Amino acid sequence: MKVSIEKKGTLFVHPVFIVGSYNENKVPNICAVSWGGMCCSEPPSVGISLRPVRHSYKNIINSGAFTINIPSVDQIDAADYSGVYSGRNENKFETLGLTAVDAGVVNAPYVAEFPMALLCKLYKTIELGVHVQLIGEIIDVIAEENVLNSNGLPDINQVKPFIYDSATRAYFATGDYLGEAYRNVKKV
Amino acid sequence: MKVSIEKKGTLFVHPVFIVGSYNENKVPNICAVSWGGMCCSEPPSVGISLRPVRHSYKNIINSGAFTINIPSVDQIDAADYSGVYSGRNENKFETLGLTAVDAGVVNAPYVAEFPMALLCKLYKTIELGVHVQLIGEIIDVIAEENVLNSNGLPDINQVKPFIYDSATRAYFATGDYLGEAYRNVKKV
Repeated sequence: MKVSIEKKGTLFVHPVFIVGSYNENKVPNICAVSWGGMCCSEPPSVGISLRPVRHSYKNIINSGAFTINIPSVDQIDAADYSGVYSGRNENKFETLGLTAVDAGVVNAPYVAEFPMALLCKLYKTIELGVHVQLIGEIIDVIAEENVLNSNGLPDINQVKPFIYDSATRAYFATGDYLGEAYRNVKKV
Repeated sequence: MKVSIEKKGTLFVHPVFIVGSYNENKVPNICAVSWGGMCCSEPPSVGISLRPVRHSYKNIINSGAFTINIPSVDQIDAADYSGVYSGRNENKFETLGLTAVDAGVVNAPYVAEFPMALLCKLYKTIELGVHVQLIGEIIDVIAEENVLNSNGLPDINQVKPFIYDSATRAYFATGDYLGEAYRNVKKV
């Protein structure tokens, strides 16, 4: 028997993206975003939703670029902090002892200490209501060499990303391997 | 030292949404979508990306509605199957022994056996390239009573959702509780 849930943003699972951007003076900023995800394979694109009042929103509109940094469970305090305090009042890289690296291929900084980052050029801006969705074309994906598997792809058990649960406003780790996808693909 | 990753859709973490829709004869269909996420709080909205060739894409465009069903780890085989085979050739509810329930508030079916569902009305259609993003306004969220916590909200450990890892094309469970979010909120 299913019952109605009041909280409309209740959905599993939300990622934790730490979005990097520059302000007009090229001061780097990061902020946590859980409303987002991949949205196109060609051009490879990812969407994040922000309220226009957010400092990062203005940064991204002005600079035309952002990065999505994937923090590890060991970096959860820094990730959480970046979603609470505004870059309008402080340089969060300095507060948190993190290193901003210029992405080069796009006009945005990434976090040196986090295991991986998507480097994105602003591709579309979609007005939805309270939030605006910023869609970035993924120009490059970069990751630490020590988190790669033998195929040169990031290993989830080395990256150790975590999840945001909007129902209880809590974080959870990723867990056990449950087998390969497309397991039912017909063998013709 | 960070290195470039060839595969541009490499990102942690992707959800597993089982999208329910009707065709023009009201035959119910489900398909797995991992490219999506929340995108607005007001109107509460969620985006999913589909290629127009997909049977579900045409269903949703024609019916103006869809559901997002969250499967439990116990239902991983059915979820995976729904992402591989097309509803053009079979009724996947019948194949998988699942029950389609008319959502009532929107013109789409949900999966009775899965622990929770978002009932969505098509709100915007965003052409991005190979994929089109279908944004649904969340009209209601429903969940089984036995997966709710004492606050009446879905408990991630009862729902037991799982994650899709696009790097290795595999599924992973959700893991340990890592503490509350907004832990650094200033107490004014």
